Amino acid sequence: MVTTSNSSSNGQPALRFGIIGVGNAGGGVLNMMRDEPKVEVVAAADIRPQALEAFQRDFGGRTYDSVEGICRAPDVDVVWIATPNHFHCPHTVLAAEHGKHIVLEKPMALSLDEASLMVETADKHGVKLLSGHTRAFDPPVQTMWRIIRSGEVGAIRAMNVMSFTDWMLRPRMPEEVDVERGGGVAFRQAPHQIDSLRFLGGGLIRSVRGTMGIWMEGRSGAPGYYTAYLEFEDGTPATIVYNAYGYFLANELLPWEMEAGAQAENRARVRNGINTGTWDQARAKDEMRTASMQGQRNALEGGGAPSGPPRQRFQSDLGLLLVTCERGLLRQSPNGIYVYNDDGLREEPIEVKEGGGDPTIEEAYNGIVLGEPIFHDGRWGMATLEVQLGLMRSARERREVLLEHQVPVPSDLAH
Amino acid sequence: MVTTSNSSSNGQPALRFGIIGVGNAGGGVLNMMRDEPKVEVVAAADIRPQALEAFQRDFGGRTYDSVEGICRAPDVDVVWIATPNHFHCPHTVLAAEHGKHIVLEKPMALSLDEASLMVETADKHGVKLLSGHTRAFDPPVQTMWRIIRSGEVGAIRAMNVMSFTDWMLRPRMPEEVDVERGGGVAFRQAPHQIDSLRFLGGGLIRSVRGTMGIWMEGRSGAPGYYTAYLEFEDGTPATIVYNAYGYFLANELLPWEMEAGAQAENRARVRNGINTGTWDQARAKDEMRTASMQGQRNALEGGGAPSGPPRQRFQSDLGLLLVTCERGLLRQSPNGIYVYNDDGLREEPIEVKEGGGDPTIEEAYNGIVLGEPIFHDGRWGMATLEVQLGLMRSARERREVLLEHQVPVPSDLAH
Repeated sequence: MVTTSNSSSNGQPALRFGIIGVGNAGGGVLNMMRDEPKVEVVAAADIRPQALEAFQRDFGGRTYDSVEGICRAPDVDVVWIATPNHFHCPHTVLAAEHGKHIVLEKPMALSLDEASLMVETADKHGVKLLSGHTRAFDPPVQTMWRIIRSGEVGAIRAMNVMSFTDWMLRPRMPEEVDVERGGGVAFRQAPHQIDSLRFLGGGLIRSVRGTMGIWMEGRSGAPGYYTAYLEFEDGTPATIVYNAYGYFLANELLPWEMEAGAQAENRARVRNGINTGTWDQARAKDEMRTASMQGQRNALEGGGAPSGPPRQRFQSDLGLLLVTCERGLLRQSPNGIYVYNDDGLREEPIEVKEGGGDPTIEEAYNGIVLGEPIFHDGRWGMATLEVQLGLMRSARERREVLLEHQVPVPSDLAH
Repeated sequence: MVTTSNSSSNGQPALRFGIIGVGNAGGGVLNMMRDEPKVEVVAAADIRPQALEAFQRDFGGRTYDSVEGICRAPDVDVVWIATPNHFHCPHTVLAAEHGKHIVLEKPMALSLDEASLMVETADKHGVKLLSGHTRAFDPPVQTMWRIIRSGEVGAIRAMNVMSFTDWMLRPRMPEEVDVERGGGVAFRQAPHQIDSLRFLGGGLIRSVRGTMGIWMEGRSGAPGYYTAYLEFEDGTPATIVYNAYGYFLANELLPWEMEAGAQAENRARVRNGINTGTWDQARAKDEMRTASMQGQRNALEGGGAPSGPPRQRFQSDLGLLLVTCERGLLRQSPNGIYVYNDDGLREEPIEVKEGGGDPTIEEAYNGIVLGEPIFHDGRWGMATLEVQLGLMRSARERREVLLEHQVPVPSDLAH
């Protein structure tokens, strides 16, 4: 339990966050936290003075130019680590040693050794470690999970998910496209699919067989493609596909999302700029950060503002997820989830909240302030990382890789 | 070379077919042959008198109540074997021993031993064996192949294909849903996907890891689901998915094909009839056969008659095929193939012929009458069967299966 001087609207103390790394991802987090009465952002750390200035101007918290600094701040209950992936381990260890609870962005770390050290250090210092912020937390996957639990369509028998995005065409920091520093889609994007499949399928993946691909001249440092076959302990199969090169987008398969065509030419221009080195990515990234802090979407992501009431967006980094069940099938719909069952087809709507309610922040609050068990803890994150690393190993060694560090979804999990 | 008394319009002799098995598949073949001036259907064999009567009434050829009988007919150059899968081997051996050339429907056989015997027997008797009639022969896959060869989008780097059909809800003969007799989708439908991927990817698959599923009460004799990861010798990955239980159909992902909803309820009614045993399948199958001979489509397949000029239909038993290339992506479009390339998106139209031009019949004619090499020969068919059997073995043994009987696409193949 955390004791603070402030109180949130429900009478419980607000959870006081320090943000480590106020980049693009951190900017998005800050917007969510601003809308969330249960939390307060009291400080931020970054090595870039401009990022800290922008933070101070827009959010008004204290700033630190080092991780040590923010970890020593007595009014920070929990740090949100949004630094490049190769810093996740050292920053987690540092925060734990200073008694701070930790929320980690995906991927948890770059190796199982790092992940083990992080879990052990958090345990040793009695702090909570939440490894999350994947699409598994979001309403579509959560709603699918509830429908499965209801028994309406029987048990899950297979899952197939395909993501086709323009991830490689968005402005990128060097480490995002350098596999040595945890760059590329197998490190950075696979957690969305793997976490979601593990959550729906019970958590325990037995083996992985897959490969990765790099084939864009201007992005030759890290894979922009992967595909794999996963099999759960209980025999349920799953396939995952991710193509980040932005020729075709999966939402072209959803009539309510967008039309093919015009955007393909925009993407072709960007791709050409990357391959010929004529695109100022650093500047584009800065513009994206600013837009992100101001709550705008990257225009390249397509879709634009939907007309009518707010609705659940298609989750392009999860992709088109088809959950085959004993007596039906689930997939995302314009306003929620399509439930194909023995009567035909119905749509389960998802209520879209106007602000707040971010599930990772919720889980952190419930775990740290209310003392509830954390589901997406370090061991859960390590198991997802093991699948990612298993995929990379399978690609290198051209063979199936058996897994050893999987943990189940708690049987008493309530949502 | 075949010598006959009749001549086709191009001055070459017509190829004289005997059809073994005038069931549903055979009925479709007969329609194609009627429109094809290069071939002549001179005889049919079946064990069902009604089927032979219908054949005689509609096509006017001679009839036989045994395979031996039609194989002894001197004016039959080639037999088209459309019998149940567990008869493919004995009927092929019999035909070869009588010096008849052979066209086989998919799957080639039920085991590699059978396939070997068929190849050896055909070789020994100097007859040609064509193992085909999959979607790999059809214009969409052929057009993709030509685009790849043109170099416009670079080499193939990955392929992902997903078929979601109502195959299990169509009227079925007992052997079609009995795995012991080659029933279920891993035997009967997988050749469409595997043949197409092998054709596009060069032919040589190194390994397969996958599984199958059976979970519909009224169809418990054979799998209605499979999914697998395939890897080619050159490292190119592919995933295949087939769900035949008809809750969701893949063409719902193609705005120009159909709307979700209404048809899902029709399918729910049929499924309920199958599960409760209240649907007269034999009668439905007979009606389907009659409709097939009369050139009508099964209404359950959806889509209906397109408006405007004839166009290339979505190939539901191949499914949604996404061919990821070095510099682009290919997939089926309303009128041909979408080519996503470095300039954006264009559509490569496919000219739809009004009749004739069936690619399997073409290949048989060119091979048998004109003496050209047959690409889809017994060894090609055996290699595709090996992938199917490898998938089944991988499912049983829960491990990756390495393949040994793969053959390449001829490097001088012209299309």
